[in-house]
Amino acid sequence: MITVQSKSEEIFQKACEYLPGGISRNTVFRDPNPDYVESASGCYITDIDGVRRIDFANNMASLIHGHAHPAIVETVINQLKRGTAYTMATQIEAEYAELLCNRVDSFERIRFMNSGTEAVMAMIKLSRAFTGKPKIAKTEGAYHGTYDFAEVSQTANPDNWGNVDLPESVPVVKGTPKSVLDEVVIFPYNDIERTLSILNRYKNEIACVIIDPIPHRVGLVKGNPEFIEAIYKWTRENNSLLVFDEVVTFRVGYGGAQEMYSVKPDLTALGKIIGGGFPVGALAGRADIMELMNPRFGKPAFPHSGTFSANPITMTAGYTAMKLFDKEAVSNLNELTSKAIEQIHESIKIADVPVSITGAGSMFRIHLKPNPPKTYREAFQPKEEQQVIKNILDYLYNEEKLLLINTCSCMFSTAITQTEVDILSEAFLRAFKKLKEQIIKIQS
Amino acid sequence: MITVQSKSEEIFQKACEYLPGGISRNTVFRDPNPDYVESASGCYITDIDGVRRIDFANNMASLIHGHAHPAIVETVINQLKRGTAYTMATQIEAEYAELLCNRVDSFERIRFMNSGTEAVMAMIKLSRAFTGKPKIAKTEGAYHGTYDFAEVSQTANPDNWGNVDLPESVPVVKGTPKSVLDEVVIFPYNDIERTLSILNRYKNEIACVIIDPIPHRVGLVKGNPEFIEAIYKWTRENNSLLVFDEVVTFRVGYGGAQEMYSVKPDLTALGKIIGGGFPVGALAGRADIMELMNPRFGKPAFPHSGTFSANPITMTAGYTAMKLFDKEAVSNLNELTSKAIEQIHESIKIADVPVSITGAGSMFRIHLKPNPPKTYREAFQPKEEQQVIKNILDYLYNEEKLLLINTCSCMFSTAITQTEVDILSEAFLRAFKKLKEQIIKIQS
Repeated sequence: MITVQSKSEEIFQKACEYLPGGISRNTVFRDPNPDYVESASGCYITDIDGVRRIDFANNMASLIHGHAHPAIVETVINQLKRGTAYTMATQIEAEYAELLCNRVDSFERIRFMNSGTEAVMAMIKLSRAFTGKPKIAKTEGAYHGTYDFAEVSQTANPDNWGNVDLPESVPVVKGTPKSVLDEVVIFPYNDIERTLSILNRYKNEIACVIIDPIPHRVGLVKGNPEFIEAIYKWTRENNSLLVFDEVVTFRVGYGGAQEMYSVKPDLTALGKIIGGGFPVGALAGRADIMELMNPRFGKPAFPHSGTFSANPITMTAGYTAMKLFDKEAVSNLNELTSKAIEQIHESIKIADVPVSITGAGSMFRIHLKPNPPKTYREAFQPKEEQQVIKNILDYLYNEEKLLLINTCSCMFSTAITQTEVDILSEAFLRAFKKLKEQIIKIQS
Repeated sequence: MITVQSKSEEIFQKACEYLPGGISRNTVFRDPNPDYVESASGCYITDIDGVRRIDFANNMASLIHGHAHPAIVETVINQLKRGTAYTMATQIEAEYAELLCNRVDSFERIRFMNSGTEAVMAMIKLSRAFTGKPKIAKTEGAYHGTYDFAEVSQTANPDNWGNVDLPESVPVVKGTPKSVLDEVVIFPYNDIERTLSILNRYKNEIACVIIDPIPHRVGLVKGNPEFIEAIYKWTRENNSLLVFDEVVTFRVGYGGAQEMYSVKPDLTALGKIIGGGFPVGALAGRADIMELMNPRFGKPAFPHSGTFSANPITMTAGYTAMKLFDKEAVSNLNELTSKAIEQIHESIKIADVPVSITGAGSMFRIHLKPNPPKTYREAFQPKEEQQVIKNILDYLYNEEKLLLINTCSCMFSTAITQTEVDILSEAFLRAFKKLKEQIIKIQS
């Protein structure tokens, strides 16, 4: 038998000689090999073997207008010809700062960086500098980038997560120093009583409480207003800061997911969509706190630099993208996403499978559980469930030519229309029917 | 009297309302305001008020071919129209990995990231994962990005640096947890005896010894081969890793500054020039260590992700830049830089000032000291000296229209020719003559 090797297989074989596991990002790995992109436009993405798929992943939620939006391409080319980075300032950084600060009440000042990881790291360092306290508190299971303090307990599992009344600080990376784990306090999301009790144990040591208002890895569950308000109140009483990680969730409202709450975070970390498709991070918040980064009057409390921070390519692309993502665009996109959720609910009903959906704004996640999970421990997927999720994703990718995020989540772009929503919900119907037996089996 | 406000002043006033201190990067701040770039090409950079300067800073050493190199602009535009980032792989990441690994003996595998800060952070985390040890050892005064473990003692000064036999771990950022400081062991550069004695005190706890082979903030002094070899030997004997930060120094040789030594680092952090003008970082090194990042067989010891890691724009620009920066280009650039150093030495001699020069390859730094410093403590500039450096830089910037790095360093690009070298050395001659009295005064 002669097997014809695809171009992607061929590239992957070569990639394995130079990249660990043959890949550059864990999220793009597929079994037996990732496919390599030839080109993409709007919500369509074509691989090097000529297969075209609809993109519901949008580079892990970072492309709010899909691929190669003409306005972004045009403005970036214009800047590209004039240079990509200088040891001097550019006007676009000031204009973009103005645009973002005018969009969100809590953004009195902003500083740009190169990734969400850098933004969260800076947010934690700034919180320590402002409060003089060493510890941070974070949600069990929440992903906040790869700064080691921020990633503690992100992958906690039933074997190591401990008692929910006082969850263990579980390392993600082997060899994480015990001293790092000891500086991180873990609490269960949306559980006011337990969380306040845990925070109170360390009340004099907590620089900030980090909240992702709709944490993807926790189950893409919305933070209850009462929960957020209770933490806000606790931080006011204990000389601590409430800081939001809106790297993913900023897309949810014109002013980010924080619009949903009556209380405002002191600081917010940003990334993803605000780069217009280019590497970006940002830290925004209260002027009196951000002032600790000001280098104009001698060494600041928090000196910070970055070779590519606020480079004019990212600023130009981000400015163009966010200007286009105005109130009307946000509202239309959220409405279309609601429609998609509604239609997939219909597919679930028709297929009669114990499946639920969580999410907000332009994001949603499919759970193979009859009721939407409310916490990380509820959302946690045992091995068998992970396998069925993978089977669904493989079916959608290979047979239906749909690209989703590997948690079975969709992060919509404005390039998606009702046509693609119909394709998606029909594909899910076929997937549910096809894999019904497996889906039901894992419930028992 | 009517003072006409420049466009840069006007932008800066607005920027101050939204950015802490009005700027996005501490290194671009100038008194009374930074100037804003209109466009740049090759080694020339023109601000929004129409002033054209020669660029010897090259975005903090990151632009090896200067601004808007036609080949980079062309290949990037081609990619831009096909998308900037996907939740899938691209062929260029495999090709670029191959190019870099073939260039340097110690690069058996490579992983791309978004900044030098991310690369150093990943290098430290991977070292801990591989050795199971919690501490790192680093050079007093060396800058390795903004990961808090990596930045300890970067700005140590005579009031807090302690005894050179066992330098203090001095925080850069206010509020750095004591637990972080305790995990960082500080040693004096190029001092074999003291360094080995310090390392021996913590011999069972050190995951890696980080070396920048020509650390800019330490004085842009080359690491002595005997020093590097002694540390290498120590790491072999103590189950520790020797890891290099070549974010800045990779430009120095075709295979990086590590070419200068008979021993090879286990891991190397990269950034700057390998992005071709776009945000980048990378971690390269021994296959058996890098394998800990491989996610193909379940959760790896070091899971790592990054939304924009290995994005095809950075990969394309970087590949194009490094392909052009071949052996001949490296050699020509280094030769031109040597010529510049020679000519500035001549200016020093003619002006008869107590000034020295350090550096290697395409980088050099001016010191207001009769003999080139050999350690951080020797290179350290008291306030008065900093002021004279600033006066020289202001003179060069305002009167001679030359942009240098704020340590009075030059990082050459291939766009610079003998014409610009002559302008630079003549400008330095005038600067030395003009400020001779100040330069002599700080010696006493």
